[in-house]
Amino acid sequence: MRALVTGAAGFLGSHLCDRLIKEGHSVVGMDNFITGSPDNIAHLAGNSKFLFIRHDVANFIFVPGKIDAVMHFASPASPNPTSPYGYTNLPIQTMKAGALGTHNTLGVARAHQARYLLASTSEIYGDPLEHPQKETYWGHVDPIGVRSMYDEAKRFAEALTMTYHHYHNINTSIVRIFNTYGTRMRLDDGRVVPNFIQQALRGEPLTVYGDGSQTRSFCYVDDLIEGIYRLLISNEHLPVNIGNPAEISILEFAETINRVVGNPAGIIKQPDLRLGDDPQRRRPDITRAKEVLDWEPKIALEVGLQRTIPYFREKLGAA
Amino acid sequence: MRALVTGAAGFLGSHLCDRLIKEGHSVVGMDNFITGSPDNIAHLAGNSKFLFIRHDVANFIFVPGKIDAVMHFASPASPNPTSPYGYTNLPIQTMKAGALGTHNTLGVARAHQARYLLASTSEIYGDPLEHPQKETYWGHVDPIGVRSMYDEAKRFAEALTMTYHHYHNINTSIVRIFNTYGTRMRLDDGRVVPNFIQQALRGEPLTVYGDGSQTRSFCYVDDLIEGIYRLLISNEHLPVNIGNPAEISILEFAETINRVVGNPAGIIKQPDLRLGDDPQRRRPDITRAKEVLDWEPKIALEVGLQRTIPYFREKLGAA
Repeated sequence: MRALVTGAAGFLGSHLCDRLIKEGHSVVGMDNFITGSPDNIAHLAGNSKFLFIRHDVANFIFVPGKIDAVMHFASPASPNPTSPYGYTNLPIQTMKAGALGTHNTLGVARAHQARYLLASTSEIYGDPLEHPQKETYWGHVDPIGVRSMYDEAKRFAEALTMTYHHYHNINTSIVRIFNTYGTRMRLDDGRVVPNFIQQALRGEPLTVYGDGSQTRSFCYVDDLIEGIYRLLISNEHLPVNIGNPAEISILEFAETINRVVGNPAGIIKQPDLRLGDDPQRRRPDITRAKEVLDWEPKIALEVGLQRTIPYFREKLGAA
Repeated sequence: MRALVTGAAGFLGSHLCDRLIKEGHSVVGMDNFITGSPDNIAHLAGNSKFLFIRHDVANFIFVPGKIDAVMHFASPASPNPTSPYGYTNLPIQTMKAGALGTHNTLGVARAHQARYLLASTSEIYGDPLEHPQKETYWGHVDPIGVRSMYDEAKRFAEALTMTYHHYHNINTSIVRIFNTYGTRMRLDDGRVVPNFIQQALRGEPLTVYGDGSQTRSFCYVDDLIEGIYRLLISNEHLPVNIGNPAEISILEFAETINRVVGNPAGIIKQPDLRLGDDPQRRRPDITRAKEVLDWEPKIALEVGLQRTIPYFREKLGAA
């Protein structure tokens, strides 16, 4: 199989490229590096299974040679407005990646009659009124809210993907990705995992905003990529949640990181002055993934953190 | 003022052109005629205040001369899948009008530093869980539902419009249009008003799907255009509902049309086999329009119907 992966230099896209190549496939990676990093794919330079094209998916996409699968992972994805890589600081690019990028990548899938996989997100559920979230839940999103450039772009992308499936008979699939962590996360995109790990490695107290009772579910990247790969090679067309249903409060999460790192500096609570609409809870119902893909996460949080922390230690040492 | 109106040959767009010209403004009308009709603007041919450009808004828009206002009304808008003009039969065009069309028209507004007005819709509320719908209601839309090509395109368009307002400082506005009726509706787009009026004029019984208890709120087009014009010349940036809050069941509505037309053939009920997700109720809360625009509808249903029916009689006679 020869797959086009957009967002190939991103956190998830680069792991996906590695997995595809490990399975014996060829990959055409595409990225414009507005949030992705060349470091994430530097190890693939010179690999005969990997061709890189620097390109913005909002513009018409030409790929030389036959493509069997298109995986659209290009988008800013951090909600943190204090980071230059947060989607609120790249709102037009985010909406173009979701609308034009999805349109253009679906066009590639149509031209090549390829399997298509859209990277969607738990953010299409917004601030959910149902817990955990099943794929049949319609979500609770403010169309003009502070996160709407991302949430509505992804909802539009899902609708367009299903439209291509129904009306152009394209073999599409949609993964709704929940919070994921692992190596190659940007240190500076403002998300909680890199923030906590960096503070812990520096021996600083971990900053928890609010009372820390808000919960998250963190999936280790290898588990996530396994689920996505299974979805790719399946015949499923409906959206599938991939994420870890193990729910943990931000406070417990901070304590776990301090324990794994061996950071004695503890935790400091600060008033939550960040982006509004921050969901209090989000947790996947993975029944469909179990049934359709025989998938569930295998890697416990402490194990995943032990695999992740050396990456951050090295990056911080180099910085 | 010189305004660009997209969808100028449509039901609402053409009435809007007339109103702008009546107020002394100049209009550049744009349409690709996939659902609009040249008949709706034939009377403007040769009018020095009106320039028509046949163009698909999904492609880059060039407008000769200075533009002071951009009003984006281009989109298929009928939910009826039995009509070739229904958006379920034009799904890609509908999503392109909502995403690319909004992007391109916002680009015109940005280039000309013009006032922007997006024609949004009550369909962004989906199958609402709150009645009536306030502008602050987030809606209840299935992102992969049978109507999602329209609903999600309009939600995306709203998010993109607010993004241009916040990040490019464009003077934007958003009108959420509820059910409207009047002259220049397509006879064959499958919506309930033209369907009922045609059946009544032919002396046939009016077909009510289901038990007829589902309600709608119908606004006469002159009322709607008045509200939109007031919004255009206001400084409002947040979405404003424009519609008639007078709620009526489909059964009562059919009886009213029979009475106004003088059709003795009555009503026939049929099982509802049409598009899923058909909302059972939708009714605008127009508090914001009253406060911000000093607007409310003035024209009673029977009066509006009396003004509308001669148009359909003439069209049917000509057919």
